[in-house]
Amino acid sequence: MKAHILSELGRRTEAPPISWLMATTLARPQLISLAAGFTDNESLPVKDVRRLLGEILCSPATGQAALQYGTTAGDPALRALTARHLQSLDGQPEAGRAYSPDRMIISNGSQQMLYMVTEALCDPGDIVLVEDPSYFVYLGILQSHGVQARGVPMEKDGLDLARLEAVLKDLKRSGELRRVKLLYLVSYYQNPTGLTTSFAKKAKALKLLREYERAAGHPIYLVEDAAYRELRFQGEGVKSTLSIKGAQERVIYAGTYSKPFATGARVGFGLMPEPVLTAVLRIKGNHDFGSSNLLQQLLARSLSTGRYEKHLAELRARYGRKAQVMRKALLEHFPPGVEWWEPDGGLYFWARLPERLASGPKSKLFQKVLASDVLYVPGELCYAHDPTRRKPNHEMRLSFGGATEANVREGIARLGAVIRGFLQSC
Amino acid sequence: MKAHILSELGRRTEAPPISWLMATTLARPQLISLAAGFTDNESLPVKDVRRLLGEILCSPATGQAALQYGTTAGDPALRALTARHLQSLDGQPEAGRAYSPDRMIISNGSQQMLYMVTEALCDPGDIVLVEDPSYFVYLGILQSHGVQARGVPMEKDGLDLARLEAVLKDLKRSGELRRVKLLYLVSYYQNPTGLTTSFAKKAKALKLLREYERAAGHPIYLVEDAAYRELRFQGEGVKSTLSIKGAQERVIYAGTYSKPFATGARVGFGLMPEPVLTAVLRIKGNHDFGSSNLLQQLLARSLSTGRYEKHLAELRARYGRKAQVMRKALLEHFPPGVEWWEPDGGLYFWARLPERLASGPKSKLFQKVLASDVLYVPGELCYAHDPTRRKPNHEMRLSFGGATEANVREGIARLGAVIRGFLQSC
Repeated sequence: MKAHILSELGRRTEAPPISWLMATTLARPQLISLAAGFTDNESLPVKDVRRLLGEILCSPATGQAALQYGTTAGDPALRALTARHLQSLDGQPEAGRAYSPDRMIISNGSQQMLYMVTEALCDPGDIVLVEDPSYFVYLGILQSHGVQARGVPMEKDGLDLARLEAVLKDLKRSGELRRVKLLYLVSYYQNPTGLTTSFAKKAKALKLLREYERAAGHPIYLVEDAAYRELRFQGEGVKSTLSIKGAQERVIYAGTYSKPFATGARVGFGLMPEPVLTAVLRIKGNHDFGSSNLLQQLLARSLSTGRYEKHLAELRARYGRKAQVMRKALLEHFPPGVEWWEPDGGLYFWARLPERLASGPKSKLFQKVLASDVLYVPGELCYAHDPTRRKPNHEMRLSFGGATEANVREGIARLGAVIRGFLQSC
Repeated sequence: MKAHILSELGRRTEAPPISWLMATTLARPQLISLAAGFTDNESLPVKDVRRLLGEILCSPATGQAALQYGTTAGDPALRALTARHLQSLDGQPEAGRAYSPDRMIISNGSQQMLYMVTEALCDPGDIVLVEDPSYFVYLGILQSHGVQARGVPMEKDGLDLARLEAVLKDLKRSGELRRVKLLYLVSYYQNPTGLTTSFAKKAKALKLLREYERAAGHPIYLVEDAAYRELRFQGEGVKSTLSIKGAQERVIYAGTYSKPFATGARVGFGLMPEPVLTAVLRIKGNHDFGSSNLLQQLLARSLSTGRYEKHLAELRARYGRKAQVMRKALLEHFPPGVEWWEPDGGLYFWARLPERLASGPKSKLFQKVLASDVLYVPGELCYAHDPTRRKPNHEMRLSFGGATEANVREGIARLGAVIRGFLQSC
């Protein structure tokens, strides 16, 4: 047997697409990047953060508390404020059990929460159900842990439930159901499609999972990744899975303050039932025994002073404007035959080209677009390795988050021209 | 086969002793804790941090950069400053390859670095060599990953090399050498013993590991955890393993700014060779794709403005004073038959009672001490589960980090009285 230097996990873990995209961006300073999930630089709350940190650090008592270790679960005040905030987003007047701060752990962005939940639940060979397409960094986590992903296609209002049921049936038939640990949903303004799963669909999906639990022999959790939830700029707010009766037994909710407040602050959180809660808390103890107290105090104070809500209102208006800029540019510059959904929030449009036009990293289209100094995320990077279907290769994720309005316009114009050229010639 | 809810890792991960100690502390507000590895509250650089963050956030350019995502490896300026800082600590005038910022990754404290290195190198069933006793949170990481620990006893100047060689020989004989992935050393003012491994011993240990590599079939890394390195208050500085010729191929160096600057800021770093570097970088991409940029800019500015060095000088003087307070109290109040080493830095004394006097969490001694409102870390918590020896159970870790000078005096006085009582009656 060959001796390996790295562990199995070490060998399985792939370079994330994000590093390749970032390297490509850095190599071309003149590039218009419609790829990055960065938030808008201009929108970052520099003055707010300065004032809030100034307040925290102006007295020895609050200053020392912020610069000292905290607890592994996270600052109790931030957890209480976050619980109240979620209740209010869900329109729940009563302090329901599902929202209890005792069920909450603060993490380094929601990314770390997704990592720890996967560590706590999944062994190599296990199966996780994901939206098809899904958030590529989560797909990377699954891959590194040797977990298989099964994709469930999306409809305009979220997950295709008939297909979800078909996948569960198939897995039951093949005896693999006991390996299914969770369904992962990016439920609001999804990364990458911009689609939102309706409340009715989330409730039905949860019900469906419970129906298959007996055959699985253990709970099948619904992980709701609500990273983009607060970046809504149109449409109605949608309640989270936490508001479904009995959800506190099966829902793992992951949220973050990175996107709605400051990506450089990296504070996220998760709510979950036992025994996942205890397992994740112990894992967090081993990861770092608690996130930076200074950043947690910053977020707590931004929430308690109302600065958070004020900033968020500005942010939503800004992204709403930028989404409209991209929408208009798409209508003007993209040829017929290219489709997209209009998102109600978040940072992304998902453009679907005719199937004959490949958009992958090695495609002529991608190369030609890059030669015109525009970068997009090739759609195929957002599809799991799922042996039961071929990866679609004719889509692109277009972000209006990081680029200026002028660059969004110019980027889409150049991209449209290149696509038009390819469609005319083939 | 029984279906489990949690993964193997989820089931293996134990509650860290630290949470039990913390819960005990919180339940008794009047408690004098000589247990916590907290730094001194009074010493936290509240004013410095306020000024530094104020400077960063006073211009949109530097403010926005701090509040935006950074790269997964970490801020280039912080990495360059850290590399230079390490070179200067090691008295290396030349920018040697071992210190290159390209080999460095910034992490959430050094704890996350230890976690990721273990993930990258160790599979369940693998073996890691540790000091006996060692840092209990690292022992928890090993345990959660199903990694066996083999303890190598300590001498006054660090690891007992003859015993290290004996352990390696044993493992070679039993055919287990191929499972040995690394030797973990807390090399400066060790947690828990306060002992420092001499440079000569580190170099010899590294040489010894290399001698056994052929039989192992892969590299055996030396992980130098230098968490307490900068908290030196007496004695000579000791060079790190990075300064050993050829070390850049086999040394993984983990450092932190938590202890020497602010535990609430949680910025650590690691330097390592390929292929560990690439694996850890990818794992970091999955954990959180980069530590908080705001905290990294804070540390970078504290280093570049000289505030870091000024603060550190104050901190060392303060801990030196507190260590003297504890030393005097130990001399005055502890009965003959109790031994300890005098640390040259760090936060800990390690008291060794006569072997007949058990000090574990369930011992009469521990309970009686707790009843007198004093808390220590029972020594047995710092020993790995190593089937080849019984865990010693007659030691205690005593920290002068968190308690005030008056409480250090009073705590040791009470502790001494209880020990004296037990020794007289048995």
